[in-house]
Amino acid sequence: MTNGDAGGPQGGTTRRELLSMIGAMGGAAAMYQAMTALGHAAETQFTGPPALSGARPGSSVLVLGAGLAGLLAALELSKAGYRVQVLEFQDRAGGRNYSVRGGDRIVEVGGATQTCTFAPGNYLNPGPWRIPHHHRTLLHYCKSLGVELEPFIQNNHNAFVHRGDAFGGQPQRYKELAVDFKGHISELLGKALNEGALDQKVSVEDKEKLLVALREWGLLDANMAYTSTIRVAGQRGYDIPPGGGLSPAPTPSSLNSLGGVLSSNVWTQMGFYFNYVMQTTMFQPKGGMDMIAAGFMREVGQLVRLNTRVTRIAQSDAGVTVNWTDTQTGEAGSSSADWCVCTIPPPVLSQIEMQVGSAMQNAIRAVPMNGQVKIGLEMRSRFWEDNYAIYGGHSFTDQAISLISYPNDNMFKDGPAVLLGAFANGAGAFQLAGMTPEQRIEMALEQGSVFHPAEYRREYVSGASVAWSRLPWIQGCTSRWTEASRATHYRNLCDFDGRIVLAGEHATYYGGWMEGSMLSALDAIGRLHSRALSA
Amino acid sequence: MTNGDAGGPQGGTTRRELLSMIGAMGGAAAMYQAMTALGHAAETQFTGPPALSGARPGSSVLVLGAGLAGLLAALELSKAGYRVQVLEFQDRAGGRNYSVRGGDRIVEVGGATQTCTFAPGNYLNPGPWRIPHHHRTLLHYCKSLGVELEPFIQNNHNAFVHRGDAFGGQPQRYKELAVDFKGHISELLGKALNEGALDQKVSVEDKEKLLVALREWGLLDANMAYTSTIRVAGQRGYDIPPGGGLSPAPTPSSLNSLGGVLSSNVWTQMGFYFNYVMQTTMFQPKGGMDMIAAGFMREVGQLVRLNTRVTRIAQSDAGVTVNWTDTQTGEAGSSSADWCVCTIPPPVLSQIEMQVGSAMQNAIRAVPMNGQVKIGLEMRSRFWEDNYAIYGGHSFTDQAISLISYPNDNMFKDGPAVLLGAFANGAGAFQLAGMTPEQRIEMALEQGSVFHPAEYRREYVSGASVAWSRLPWIQGCTSRWTEASRATHYRNLCDFDGRIVLAGEHATYYGGWMEGSMLSALDAIGRLHSRALSA
Repeated sequence: MTNGDAGGPQGGTTRRELLSMIGAMGGAAAMYQAMTALGHAAETQFTGPPALSGARPGSSVLVLGAGLAGLLAALELSKAGYRVQVLEFQDRAGGRNYSVRGGDRIVEVGGATQTCTFAPGNYLNPGPWRIPHHHRTLLHYCKSLGVELEPFIQNNHNAFVHRGDAFGGQPQRYKELAVDFKGHISELLGKALNEGALDQKVSVEDKEKLLVALREWGLLDANMAYTSTIRVAGQRGYDIPPGGGLSPAPTPSSLNSLGGVLSSNVWTQMGFYFNYVMQTTMFQPKGGMDMIAAGFMREVGQLVRLNTRVTRIAQSDAGVTVNWTDTQTGEAGSSSADWCVCTIPPPVLSQIEMQVGSAMQNAIRAVPMNGQVKIGLEMRSRFWEDNYAIYGGHSFTDQAISLISYPNDNMFKDGPAVLLGAFANGAGAFQLAGMTPEQRIEMALEQGSVFHPAEYRREYVSGASVAWSRLPWIQGCTSRWTEASRATHYRNLCDFDGRIVLAGEHATYYGGWMEGSMLSALDAIGRLHSRALSA
Repeated sequence: MTNGDAGGPQGGTTRRELLSMIGAMGGAAAMYQAMTALGHAAETQFTGPPALSGARPGSSVLVLGAGLAGLLAALELSKAGYRVQVLEFQDRAGGRNYSVRGGDRIVEVGGATQTCTFAPGNYLNPGPWRIPHHHRTLLHYCKSLGVELEPFIQNNHNAFVHRGDAFGGQPQRYKELAVDFKGHISELLGKALNEGALDQKVSVEDKEKLLVALREWGLLDANMAYTSTIRVAGQRGYDIPPGGGLSPAPTPSSLNSLGGVLSSNVWTQMGFYFNYVMQTTMFQPKGGMDMIAAGFMREVGQLVRLNTRVTRIAQSDAGVTVNWTDTQTGEAGSSSADWCVCTIPPPVLSQIEMQVGSAMQNAIRAVPMNGQVKIGLEMRSRFWEDNYAIYGGHSFTDQAISLISYPNDNMFKDGPAVLLGAFANGAGAFQLAGMTPEQRIEMALEQGSVFHPAEYRREYVSGASVAWSRLPWIQGCTSRWTEASRATHYRNLCDFDGRIVLAGEHATYYGGWMEGSMLSALDAIGRLHSRALSA
């Protein structure tokens, strides 16, 4: 800390320094209180890069898996003075931090193989694809590793909502349904309030204010009714929009009935955009999600041995020994170190011989993974921009594909672009994963055509699908914890077993997000460092 | 039209061709119906660049004012074969399409002069600053003129809402207030429905669906109450957020009461983001709003005479003659042409001798302008990103400054950045416009500090303010039409008077937007071309 800095209530102490100090003195709870008091939302458990230093000379760590957890561990442990080696099964680093580009091969369990033919510069992010503004760990490393970010458009009022049994199967614009939803519920609540139905529950003062709020927010007319007016058109859109000079004057649009709006389930989307992890502002790396792994690899690439299949993990009081096979040469070898950070995903790890107690063994077997499916469709032109004024965001459907999502890179450019043609979960994902890659594309084209019937097949060039449950190196996409499995197994999964600690997306309260994986790694290496110093 | 194109329901006819055809046959109403049927929202009256051609050899047009309306008119009329000259009062083109940068001088009526000292690359957009996705005219010209756009973040859930009389004057995060608002009103409406208060108004089927909707959208618990749960924290934020490994488990945050939420007027912001012209996705030109004028100037710069004050506009059956003075040299001159498109703003135009009938004269005097005030504050660092996780968007207040808005360019970069420190309307604008530039900055710093008390003054480097009512070349910012003035004067303002037609932001149903100004120009030059051909 310096004290000679210019003005301000905190003098020369930065917030980060102050928070570290409070954290060191008062523990986590005190720190979160302080963060809130300082105007930080308590948004992440990240309070800055770890201040590890002073590793014992010669101390060493084996890191298994070069996904974000492994790469972060390697970076920070090597900076702290550890000798680090990373073993990675695939021929690339990053794990689920992954982008598929023209020339890339996707090989599935069972042998189905795709070779992507997207145009240069185009890509599909089959795993993570959007970064919340409060994922401070990830954003910290993006900035410090020089990974350029661009906005990821999440809520697009002009995108579509589709349900097979609503509006005769015709997609509706989100803005129309959402504005009608708030209009109708404002009218209904206003009526209930005015009739005294809630007088026991709402004070006279709040009732007055609430009626004003409903009239303004719901765009109600002088009779507190939701009716078609130019004011309402100013939100849901016009029949004839405003023009210039002597062109026709604007006219309002007609409203959907309450029943119509409810049949669309638009409240699902309206709520979705409020999810903390989905709230604007969100980001994506320019050029593909794997730019983050590439950033780490610029720093620690020399520590990573690719094409290395771990076959056995053994430990003693003295250290950890890992046996492996080189998947390219067939060479068998082993590596040893004082400590091991293992980030291999549970479905794969459970199949590897590993010298840990039954508590950790059972925990590893207790975390199944969901098998999402994503499909990228390269289209000849950006017809969604030119013909529909849709720039980024998602059109949702109740079909297996679940949504289509419009690209956030290179808006307004000509030439081919990759649309996300499916992001399937649950039953839809099972269905798609069970198909051949060709069948998946056909289904994506069929179902996505509901939004853009004239253009979808006409503009289609090529596609690529990633069915996570069928990828041999992970066999799933996001960990599935239940309240019960968390209570029984989570601590056992995360606790050290001798000289081995697990980290990764499965070892976190923040499953399905890169931030969770990185927070898990930070926690694990912090504990590793303490142990190593006191061992 | 070609018919040999590949597949698709529309064969080789593009939507645009089809729409032009329908427009030509059936007029505007038929065209808007067709647009909607084809999946176009009727979003703008723009259906493509005008197909003017075949001007009579030697025909000429004088364009007065080189704002967007004038520049567009010049571009399209010259392409159609007219000889075009543009006279512009200022030493730059663009008009309100304007960015203030380091080195720029701002001279006000009364003499107050500022010289901006922003760092290279930084700017303030004092006029228009955000482009809706449905402003197709503007977007068309941006694309065809090579003006690069980037997203403008509008709705930022993590920005603040402030009212002096709410929460003891402490700003609250938008996400917390908005999630609480929908939670409370869902609980209330659910209660009214369950008690049968709305049974006369809602069918049994809709009631069932609506209860489901309210429970899901409002995040109500099993008793249909809005209570503090981890599920609710998944939208409004946590006290302890999810972490990794053995860090503490997440805990929910406490909720604001209905009264607290209502005192914040958060529904104002919640409604604001639904305004059609404010809906995501929005854009800004990379490098400053005046990149649009610069794009036009690359095409028609040779037609524009800068520093030219129009002193008289005369016409006869044979043509139009405009007298002018060169503001740099004092030279007096005149220019003549067959036709005149006059885009000079009403407050200035009403002071110029002009040979038109009383209908147009009265109309010009019937359009006063609002005098918004914007203030740019250059800050040493992006503390709103680093310390508050705010990237773009606005923090609203009931103080004179009305809001502060966070820059959308160069996110995550180091070094100085320009925050919009005020965007004042109405009383706040009057107050700020009446101050010296120094006083305005002081007020902006004082009032903006409510959001970022530790950093605001500490990080401040320099500021620039634009009080539109005090700019001699326009004396206002956006035209103010009432229903009454529109009924009496609008047609008279837009109709040809002899060989003179007006265009610009004032001659449109879309006041305050560049799109309106351009639609007005398109309408005016379309009518001019018809007249010229049939004259």
